[in-house]
Amino acid sequence: MKTYNVGILGATGAVGREMIKILEERNFPVNELRLLASARSVGKTIAFGQKEVTVKEARDDAFEGLDIVLGAAENDIAVRFAPAITAAGAVFVDNSSAFRLRDDVPLVVPEINPEDAKWHNGIISNPNCSTIITLVALNPINKISPIKKLVASTYQAVSGAGVGGIKELEDQIAAHNKGEKAENKIFAHQIAFNLIPAIGGTGDNGYTSEEMKLQNEGRKIMHLPELTVTCTCVRVPVLRSHSISATFVTEDYISVEDAQKAIENGLGVKLVDEPKKQVYPMPLDTSDIDTVYVGRIRRDLTEENGLSLFCCGDQIRKGAATNAVQIAELLIKK
Amino acid sequence: MKTYNVGILGATGAVGREMIKILEERNFPVNELRLLASARSVGKTIAFGQKEVTVKEARDDAFEGLDIVLGAAENDIAVRFAPAITAAGAVFVDNSSAFRLRDDVPLVVPEINPEDAKWHNGIISNPNCSTIITLVALNPINKISPIKKLVASTYQAVSGAGVGGIKELEDQIAAHNKGEKAENKIFAHQIAFNLIPAIGGTGDNGYTSEEMKLQNEGRKIMHLPELTVTCTCVRVPVLRSHSISATFVTEDYISVEDAQKAIENGLGVKLVDEPKKQVYPMPLDTSDIDTVYVGRIRRDLTEENGLSLFCCGDQIRKGAATNAVQIAELLIKK
Repeated sequence: MKTYNVGILGATGAVGREMIKILEERNFPVNELRLLASARSVGKTIAFGQKEVTVKEARDDAFEGLDIVLGAAENDIAVRFAPAITAAGAVFVDNSSAFRLRDDVPLVVPEINPEDAKWHNGIISNPNCSTIITLVALNPINKISPIKKLVASTYQAVSGAGVGGIKELEDQIAAHNKGEKAENKIFAHQIAFNLIPAIGGTGDNGYTSEEMKLQNEGRKIMHLPELTVTCTCVRVPVLRSHSISATFVTEDYISVEDAQKAIENGLGVKLVDEPKKQVYPMPLDTSDIDTVYVGRIRRDLTEENGLSLFCCGDQIRKGAATNAVQIAELLIKK
Repeated sequence: MKTYNVGILGATGAVGREMIKILEERNFPVNELRLLASARSVGKTIAFGQKEVTVKEARDDAFEGLDIVLGAAENDIAVRFAPAITAAGAVFVDNSSAFRLRDDVPLVVPEINPEDAKWHNGIISNPNCSTIITLVALNPINKISPIKKLVASTYQAVSGAGVGGIKELEDQIAAHNKGEKAENKIFAHQIAFNLIPAIGGTGDNGYTSEEMKLQNEGRKIMHLPELTVTCTCVRVPVLRSHSISATFVTEDYISVEDAQKAIENGLGVKLVDEPKKQVYPMPLDTSDIDTVYVGRIRRDLTEENGLSLFCCGDQIRKGAATNAVQIAELLIKK
């Protein structure tokens, strides 16, 4: 079997570490695994199968000989190293938002638009986490009749802000229990026992960057240039897995039963929809798995061709690391 | 000054206790305060101003001499005692959902439809908590141009299920910290670090009872019989204050600036809307106050005449106890 030299840029963060785990879980045919991070992580070792891999410094000359680089770093790092990665002949599967909307860069969710992985010019972008989870849930229904518009409200876990987000929530709960003031560094406000209804910087139209991604990336991934989306992103005191309440209108009428059947037969999704038996998607149940749970499917009472649903997915796995490894799998497929 | 004999039915629960506090805070002209509850609470004392009031048993003969009874009990208790309350000549301001949709019972939010308090026949219903908070936020905008349809997703605090809900969240967090399994009694599933996307029983249309209240009660309170609402109710691990993400369409176009001005000048609301400075409504900030905070006002990107906002309010105060006391204030106004 052909094997590949795989690099991970930003290997020590939450998403980078998950990528290592998922390469192993999915038996990705790795020859060399090269873990790259900033200078202060150099020398750390991370387990990969039976081996301990030592973290090296991400530098322009660090990508030679690699076939694929999975990017788990912030935009500035992705932009800085993209030229060196492509010059080295590797394909850069990047999880940052830096290249996602560029016309010469495919934006891929393998369950939805795997064919787009073919026309890359050295960079393929991995979409935003909430966007992936929402679109994987909607995709089977969108295949019956295209979605025209979508109103979404998110419930996003603290780990969306990295491992520091989890620690901050836990520290704040501990402070609360001792009657002390909860300190905040990662989030703009206390998140324990609270909600923060804004994620990302706010643009002039009043939407945050995170909110606009669902429309902008959704249009590109689903090949629906006319899709309109109103999204409200809210951070909630959940450790892991993002949830989305989605109400949407399709071109043609789709019955609840047909929508449920579509989810039952859909890719990457599981129908979890028996609310009378208290069975519905919950973030605790989707944590540390790849499947997006979809339930609460019912008619939108405000629009003839509308439906509403609730979905949950692990934003570190399917929302980031798993999706990136799936793209890498598309690349090595004949 | 004329004073009144006021009874509280269900005086020992979360809402009942809050009603006692709010009667005192608002200097309601109380002559006698009669606290009524089930037999097992009889003999407990609760402070009201300088006095300690002893809880008596709620029985058919317990309402004689009362002018107003504030109901803070479940539907079955409200239905059982309503005839005795009205027969005693008292007006029953009831927080249960038992009478809310009855044609001969007004359903009142004093900021919105105070005039409806006038035509009662002995019973006035206090609306659902999420409904009150959402409608108080929308009311100033609805006055510019009527709301035609609304898509709402809620983020509801555990105290919406009473004091037991708070204890269950705190106990589950303690269990989690010890690595133990979190027990659940009040909620259908673990709520610590989780979401439960269903509140109330599920009807045949797939909506829960809590979700349908926003449309059914909203139509009656706002005098908008054609209003359509798609609501998704989600329990979140927040102690107090419900939050709502609301996207809605008005008959005429309203600019964001005009909507913001309407909130600035509206009743019972405060505009908290500077997202670039991380200023937006949060449940921690609205806990233990009566004002509903409204922010994140921006255009709905899916509809020409649509707007979207986020609001938070204390569901025990404005969502229940305060609203009931405000209705009592309307009753004693000339």
